[in-house]
Amino acid sequence: MIILGIDPGLAIIGYGVVEYKNNRFRTLDYGAITTPAKMDNVDRLELIYKGMDELFKIYDIDEVGIEELFFNKNVKTAITVAQARGVILLSCKHNNKPVFEYTPLQIKQGVCGYGRADKSQVQKMVTSFLGLKSVPKPDDVADALAVGICHAHANRLGKELSKYY
Amino acid sequence: MIILGIDPGLAIIGYGVVEYKNNRFRTLDYGAITTPAKMDNVDRLELIYKGMDELFKIYDIDEVGIEELFFNKNVKTAITVAQARGVILLSCKHNNKPVFEYTPLQIKQGVCGYGRADKSQVQKMVTSFLGLKSVPKPDDVADALAVGICHAHANRLGKELSKYY
Repeated sequence: MIILGIDPGLAIIGYGVVEYKNNRFRTLDYGAITTPAKMDNVDRLELIYKGMDELFKIYDIDEVGIEELFFNKNVKTAITVAQARGVILLSCKHNNKPVFEYTPLQIKQGVCGYGRADKSQVQKMVTSFLGLKSVPKPDDVADALAVGICHAHANRLGKELSKYY
Repeated sequence: MIILGIDPGLAIIGYGVVEYKNNRFRTLDYGAITTPAKMDNVDRLELIYKGMDELFKIYDIDEVGIEELFFNKNVKTAITVAQARGVILLSCKHNNKPVFEYTPLQIKQGVCGYGRADKSQVQKMVTSFLGLKSVPKPDDVADALAVGICHAHANRLGKELSKYY
């Protein structure tokens, strides 16, 4: 199964494309869709949609994992990022890809096995799982790969549990 | 000029299509795009995009006016509504329609002439400007028509000022 992991944003959208087969990962691609801060907001949304569309054209993605948004303070930022996330979700739907949403806690649990893991622990596990030489930069890219790994593990767990129930 | 006014939302997206010519309004259509609460969130976003697309197919819209989002309390609601708003903005861009955003204060000023007007005053002015027999329901529809009127007035003001500056 080929999984696209997404760390949503307006300026930087981290993505990671991983194949998960026989409990092993193969890293196909990772990087970021970026939009210039000076660009008109509506144009930025279009750029994000186009970038997502391109990923779906290049890779034969089966499922998408995406981080849920949590904001405590800046509601204005929350709104602009959520608008971008809406466009990301729409692009998945337009490409007929099932989307699975994970909270930051679920991602930490899915990658490290416990929800209180810190950022550097998550990044080390991502690097190790994918056999990378160094931690992918910026953080948004590592976060996207973490969502991908989390979804693979959640999926496997679901299948194993279904044997018993 | 034909203007599409939009009151963004996830469950109810109010819309109003008005023609503004020689300082007079003609109401072409108004109503709401609605999405069922029980529907999957990603499917709701697709439904909104489709609904917008249909409006652009039916009416030869020149410009779009849309209300800005303001949230003080429920950030979770803000995020889901903002995701829907992102999809609305994208549909405008995909249909090559210029989008103009207005705050609630600007809309009240643009319709009633003063920013402290209350909801019922705005609704009365909308009904009067458009020559309607009664206040359009639900409120989202009246709000969408108010944005359309606000944009028409803002536009005229801009053109008149440009004679002098």
